[in-house]
Amino acid sequence: MPTANRERAARTRQRILLAAAEVFDETGYERAAVTQIVERAGLTLGALYFHFGSKQGLAEALMNAQPATIEPHLDSTGLQRLVDITLVWADRMRRDPILRAGVRLAVEQGSHGMNDASSFEEWRSLMRDHLDVARKAGELREGVDPDRVARFVVGACTGMQVYSQLATQRADLIQRVCDMWALLLPGIASAPVADGIQAGPERVPAS
Amino acid sequence: MPTANRERAARTRQRILLAAAEVFDETGYERAAVTQIVERAGLTLGALYFHFGSKQGLAEALMNAQPATIEPHLDSTGLQRLVDITLVWADRMRRDPILRAGVRLAVEQGSHGMNDASSFEEWRSLMRDHLDVARKAGELREGVDPDRVARFVVGACTGMQVYSQLATQRADLIQRVCDMWALLLPGIASAPVADGIQAGPERVPAS
Repeated sequence: MPTANRERAARTRQRILLAAAEVFDETGYERAAVTQIVERAGLTLGALYFHFGSKQGLAEALMNAQPATIEPHLDSTGLQRLVDITLVWADRMRRDPILRAGVRLAVEQGSHGMNDASSFEEWRSLMRDHLDVARKAGELREGVDPDRVARFVVGACTGMQVYSQLATQRADLIQRVCDMWALLLPGIASAPVADGIQAGPERVPAS
Repeated sequence: MPTANRERAARTRQRILLAAAEVFDETGYERAAVTQIVERAGLTLGALYFHFGSKQGLAEALMNAQPATIEPHLDSTGLQRLVDITLVWADRMRRDPILRAGVRLAVEQGSHGMNDASSFEEWRSLMRDHLDVARKAGELREGVDPDRVARFVVGACTGMQVYSQLATQRADLIQRVCDMWALLLPGIASAPVADGIQAGPERVPAS
């Protein structure tokens, strides 16, 4: 495809994702109609089916779009990168409808008859890669397994989000993430590194 | 009410809870019919409305029944009690339909139009009480706040369960809880206590 067409296709895809995120958020996945989504996007049903195949394909794409909404905002490495991912994620959960829809669909998918761990596994693999960098840089305590830490952080963030949303509409989500790192870093980071890691709200970029 | 009547009422209530848990599990909350629930329980609609008021009242009762399915199995105190709660919870999630329905309803309630943090807050308060005992016994590191630890553990367990269910049908849930404590104890427990806490699968009572 020529570059101009590829860019147009990417924009179309993004418009459908955004419209779907909004409609799922307003009416819930079950009641959302694909006709309503394409109308909101100002596009045709053909475009939706071309890019996503079905309503469930759209839900899967939203669930898997999470890292792409976070990673471009970051430039740290190793353990600091892992901390930054979770803080920026917590911040953007309050403002980014595509991220919010993806997380909500992933958590509530059981009630829609879906059973797909791939968005969790993608986060885990991405975090494990950053933890492997941290290990090579000597940032981790001896015996700490990058994959188990990654698996735990993905699960913990998932549940903190559910609880924070119900209790405070996510107003305290960033604080909960900071608390997590205060509790976890002594068990993960080697002693000289732990004190140098910044895990407070100041790591969230102004926007 | 005379004791015999009170006991009969408690048994009736429990039969309805169990039938509702099974029906919600099979058909999802939205599609579950109260007539189907009382039929399964071998009781009348009147009994259901007397004990729970509505289908939503039944969902709330299931969400709030979680601690009552765990606490009677435990006799440890302080930090060891907190660890034991999470391990027994992970074990019983695989076998107790009332517990499983309560957790699932709490997590997916957004898709049913509910917004009720009370089952999370109840766990948090119960865990905070055990952590207060731990603090008085000198088991906690200086500066560790029992309420923040409790809030974090409730959230982390919630998310680990969602992820474990999707990835392995909860087969690895107990191992994930053990991993959580290996990562958390260095940040929570005072140094001499941390080594004495048992946080392995051997803490789950045989049944």
